[in-house]
Amino acid sequence: MGHQGETARRRIIDAAYEYFYRHGYGRAGVDAIAEAAGVTKRTLYHHFDSKDALLTAVLEDQHELVLKRLRQWLKPKNEPSALAEVMFAELKRWSAKPGWQGSGFSRAVLELADLPGHPARLAARRHKAALEQLLREELAQYAHRDADVLARQVLALVEGCMVLILVHGDPTYADAGGAAARLLVEAAARQGTGAQIR
Amino acid sequence: MGHQGETARRRIIDAAYEYFYRHGYGRAGVDAIAEAAGVTKRTLYHHFDSKDALLTAVLEDQHELVLKRLRQWLKPKNEPSALAEVMFAELKRWSAKPGWQGSGFSRAVLELADLPGHPARLAARRHKAALEQLLREELAQYAHRDADVLARQVLALVEGCMVLILVHGDPTYADAGGAAARLLVEAAARQGTGAQIR
Repeated sequence: MGHQGETARRRIIDAAYEYFYRHGYGRAGVDAIAEAAGVTKRTLYHHFDSKDALLTAVLEDQHELVLKRLRQWLKPKNEPSALAEVMFAELKRWSAKPGWQGSGFSRAVLELADLPGHPARLAARRHKAALEQLLREELAQYAHRDADVLARQVLALVEGCMVLILVHGDPTYADAGGAAARLLVEAAARQGTGAQIR
Repeated sequence: MGHQGETARRRIIDAAYEYFYRHGYGRAGVDAIAEAAGVTKRTLYHHFDSKDALLTAVLEDQHELVLKRLRQWLKPKNEPSALAEVMFAELKRWSAKPGWQGSGFSRAVLELADLPGHPARLAARRHKAALEQLLREELAQYAHRDADVLARQVLALVEGCMVLILVHGDPTYADAGGAAARLLVEAAARQGTGAQIR
């Protein structure tokens, strides 16, 4: 694929991201995406076999961006509570932006809940597993034995806060989530043995 | 409306619930719902002005059912940890059922994320607010000063576990959520002053 092809592909992915994020998978139209990308529908289908393939490409692209962002947020901290603080402070800031509509991955999963084998579902599963893995590695610094469970708990708080912020249009749910994460991480760090985080 | 009308209305709501829950709002067809309910499309539109109105009626119907179920789960417990145990044990059991696809309310919100004024969004907001209120009242028995924050935290864990269970097809996320909720409730009960649950 030449430089032109790469540029068109990139423009299609960027336009598709906007449409899928704004309107969800079902209501985002391929015609509108092609138009926004400044390509013909024929060109779009030259790069992506189907709307499914396009959504999958968008999610794989986002996967890299999100992991990079999370790694920045998780830059080594001096104390365990700082990790929880920064994650939920960033979530609060992000969710207060105009047009914020939660995690595109989680929304794809919930919209395609009846299609567990859909390629977008597989991309979302890989993405969330990578986030959990990254978080587990960070948390292992503070809670060696319980990092697995702790990573699931912190991630559940992040996911749940996103849902509740979207339901109520209220980013302060991230404050409650951050306080909970801090308490969980501190308890694990204090206990060491994991007696409390079974 | 006569008895016949009530019966048709009930059948339409039940059929619509199945279709909306299984396929989401966008992909559930009014034709298929009418057929499953054994009524004509004309009859369906006699009872419900639009697909929007039908979804809203389904969510309002579910609202009562879910609150009733939650009240049963939350029947007075002897110790705070029992509340967390039962909620997440029930979540695990529910989410392991064939065809389980998470909370219909949360899915409607995420699918209609760009339409905050949609009547289904308002129904979902009322529903989640009622759950939070009910949980707050229960938790106030154990953590007087922090019941507000604690209710948000436990609800965030429930919502987040539902998302992660759906993402991974793995109900054991409810175990991690239950352990976190138990630790949070016990810490609040122990502290009383709320020093830990800011």
